[in-house]
Amino acid sequence: MKDSVFLKITKFDDAFSQLQKFSYPMEESEKVPLKESLNRILFRDVKSPIDVPDFPGSSRDGYAVISADTFGAEEDKPVLLHSVGEVCIGTKPSVVLQRGQCVKISTGAMVPKGADSIIMVEYTEEGNGRIKVYRPVSPGDNITKVGTDLKAGEVVLRKAKKLTVFDSGVLASIGLSKIDVFRKPKVAIISTGNELVTPGQRLDAGKIYDVNSVTIHQAVLESGGAPIEFGMLPDEYSLILEAVESALSSSDIVLVSGGTSKGPGDLMPEVIQGIGTPSFFVHGIAMKPGKPTILSSIRGKLLLTLPGYPTSALIVYYTLVDPCIRKMARQPPYRFQIVKAYTSTRFYSEIGRKEFKPCRISSRDDGRFYVIPMPTGSEAITTLGKADGFIIIEENVEIVGENQEVDLHVFPHKVEKMNDPMGEEL
Amino acid sequence: MKDSVFLKITKFDDAFSQLQKFSYPMEESEKVPLKESLNRILFRDVKSPIDVPDFPGSSRDGYAVISADTFGAEEDKPVLLHSVGEVCIGTKPSVVLQRGQCVKISTGAMVPKGADSIIMVEYTEEGNGRIKVYRPVSPGDNITKVGTDLKAGEVVLRKAKKLTVFDSGVLASIGLSKIDVFRKPKVAIISTGNELVTPGQRLDAGKIYDVNSVTIHQAVLESGGAPIEFGMLPDEYSLILEAVESALSSSDIVLVSGGTSKGPGDLMPEVIQGIGTPSFFVHGIAMKPGKPTILSSIRGKLLLTLPGYPTSALIVYYTLVDPCIRKMARQPPYRFQIVKAYTSTRFYSEIGRKEFKPCRISSRDDGRFYVIPMPTGSEAITTLGKADGFIIIEENVEIVGENQEVDLHVFPHKVEKMNDPMGEEL
Repeated sequence: MKDSVFLKITKFDDAFSQLQKFSYPMEESEKVPLKESLNRILFRDVKSPIDVPDFPGSSRDGYAVISADTFGAEEDKPVLLHSVGEVCIGTKPSVVLQRGQCVKISTGAMVPKGADSIIMVEYTEEGNGRIKVYRPVSPGDNITKVGTDLKAGEVVLRKAKKLTVFDSGVLASIGLSKIDVFRKPKVAIISTGNELVTPGQRLDAGKIYDVNSVTIHQAVLESGGAPIEFGMLPDEYSLILEAVESALSSSDIVLVSGGTSKGPGDLMPEVIQGIGTPSFFVHGIAMKPGKPTILSSIRGKLLLTLPGYPTSALIVYYTLVDPCIRKMARQPPYRFQIVKAYTSTRFYSEIGRKEFKPCRISSRDDGRFYVIPMPTGSEAITTLGKADGFIIIEENVEIVGENQEVDLHVFPHKVEKMNDPMGEEL
Repeated sequence: MKDSVFLKITKFDDAFSQLQKFSYPMEESEKVPLKESLNRILFRDVKSPIDVPDFPGSSRDGYAVISADTFGAEEDKPVLLHSVGEVCIGTKPSVVLQRGQCVKISTGAMVPKGADSIIMVEYTEEGNGRIKVYRPVSPGDNITKVGTDLKAGEVVLRKAKKLTVFDSGVLASIGLSKIDVFRKPKVAIISTGNELVTPGQRLDAGKIYDVNSVTIHQAVLESGGAPIEFGMLPDEYSLILEAVESALSSSDIVLVSGGTSKGPGDLMPEVIQGIGTPSFFVHGIAMKPGKPTILSSIRGKLLLTLPGYPTSALIVYYTLVDPCIRKMARQPPYRFQIVKAYTSTRFYSEIGRKEFKPCRISSRDDGRFYVIPMPTGSEAITTLGKADGFIIIEENVEIVGENQEVDLHVFPHKVEKMNDPMGEEL
């Protein structure tokens, strides 16, 4: 395997579709309290166990009456009814209405048996235990019938729906306090590299702080996965093998960063070989950044190895891993907001690699937006943090001329800023 | 107070600006682990405590050399250097380079003292402990200098920045594991009404399930507040007073739903009077829905009473409460996505009230989008859940004609759908 597949470069689009093919949507469910269900994916169709409302209710403040009693009532010839009590909201009426009787009722209260309509309080007058009714009502007037909103047995929300605040309202209204949703894919995160130190610890000479453990963790949350920390490992074959084996057995996806190239400390190809035969294996993708990325599926789990360099890792995450996790989590794919802009300068790219080029956006007097590439040779996270998104330069393109229209793919966290593209931001 | 202010209707825009005036941005901080910092608001400027990188590093695989030794090296006249070891990534070099010596080095490893440049491995050849160098290098070649990305003391992120995945990367790269962010405003949530039953419990005759406790809780999370459950209360003055007093003392905002009208069970105006004199008080807003809303500030805290009806409560929430919580939380205001659409029919509205009319969106053969009002008389949450957003009909407008251009304000949870407006959804 080593000689034939390693760094046999795969086209980005092929790598993407192979990874998608091996990204299996979750099949298992878990029960969550309704309050915690926001943005989760519904596991099955939900049918209402009750009619909503499940009692006939008054839609007005007034009197519950028998409509036949009000026939002929006029402004100057009111009908007189005998008031036999009051129904307050939330209580079960104790009376059964007889001809000639009425019951005071509030909006939302249950209509007593015998009554078939509500006369609004505006068309009545009270006095001496009698109620003068100045207008006739018809059967059903001002009554919200049982099942007006929902009928028992009706499907209220369908399987695979992403739950919103309003959906939670619907589910609460039919009495559910917990709900079955698809389990989130568990995503194990492992950083590798002898040079790495956990933030908060002392930085010895020659070391740098581990960035990927934090950024990938947060990115996984945004994709709808459940990140699991497997920590930071030195470049030691047996330690990495052990961690990856353990992660594979307890997670749905394993994301390793670092160890992807052919340098002395880059052990992941060997680790994969040590675990078994992958059912799919891509090492080397014709993309920039991200060339040394390894995609593989082994023991039915995805094992993805991102470049160690934090900004490369994030670009690979957003272009390949995020669509994979969302598919597994059954979340809708993220659609990059596109801003039409023009190149501020010539852009050079390497033939044979699809380039994701981080850019800032700027406006000019001509009212157009222009994309400005981030300075080359400075791929630090501090620089990338200031980029608004990226433009894509296809594999077969070497130069994009000045003033060409391009699509800026806005980074998810810059979408708010794009509403006010010139807004100040450090 | 009771007679003079209650239901003295305030215009929506006035109510909005008064509420904004009394919404004070949080001043307190809390420390959170970096992993949990996503979307939080930075409490103060962050300066880097270190140079990044804080050591001179090789940007290539090759040999660390003294550039003067390589002068005159040519393809057919290589310079011979004595290899005195290797520097691996993450280690402190033990040698100090002398004239005529070189040290093998990997990308990212620390450049040993004495060396002033790196010759790429491609331009060298190894043999018998000697390294043939086929090209000259200049001082500084292929070395990433100390502080290239960031200098110690440099401000990396400014106070009030909403933290992104990239920002976390920046903070990790300077070694921070925890970060001071503004505390979230604590939002107490109280549902009132004799008719309410907690979802999951048995529904007795005349009762309905409490929806607001769940929907408002989730909406507060989305606004950047910290919801605190104060549960559900019957319409009893002393119980509500006690709960509101307790909520006021432990929270920054108290949101009560129900009890806003002048009906027999509607106690909130009385409760407010029982607590003290509000520094601002609006009861009755010229909006539809939401007319009986009460906005008040008392004991320096906001006490906001939403209509009990779940859909009305949510419309008031999104139009008034969300902007208030975001201001307090120092989150950027939510900007509704606007879809330009045309009225599918005549829209009637009540003069004197600003109407927020929930609509669905649909397309026609002419390629335009049309807004369709949700059926009147069916303001149930099940119906509102199918609306894509709302159009605003101003106070002085009674009729919006057919085929008029209008702005559909897309509900936050429908933004994803709007990318594919005709996509199927129950």
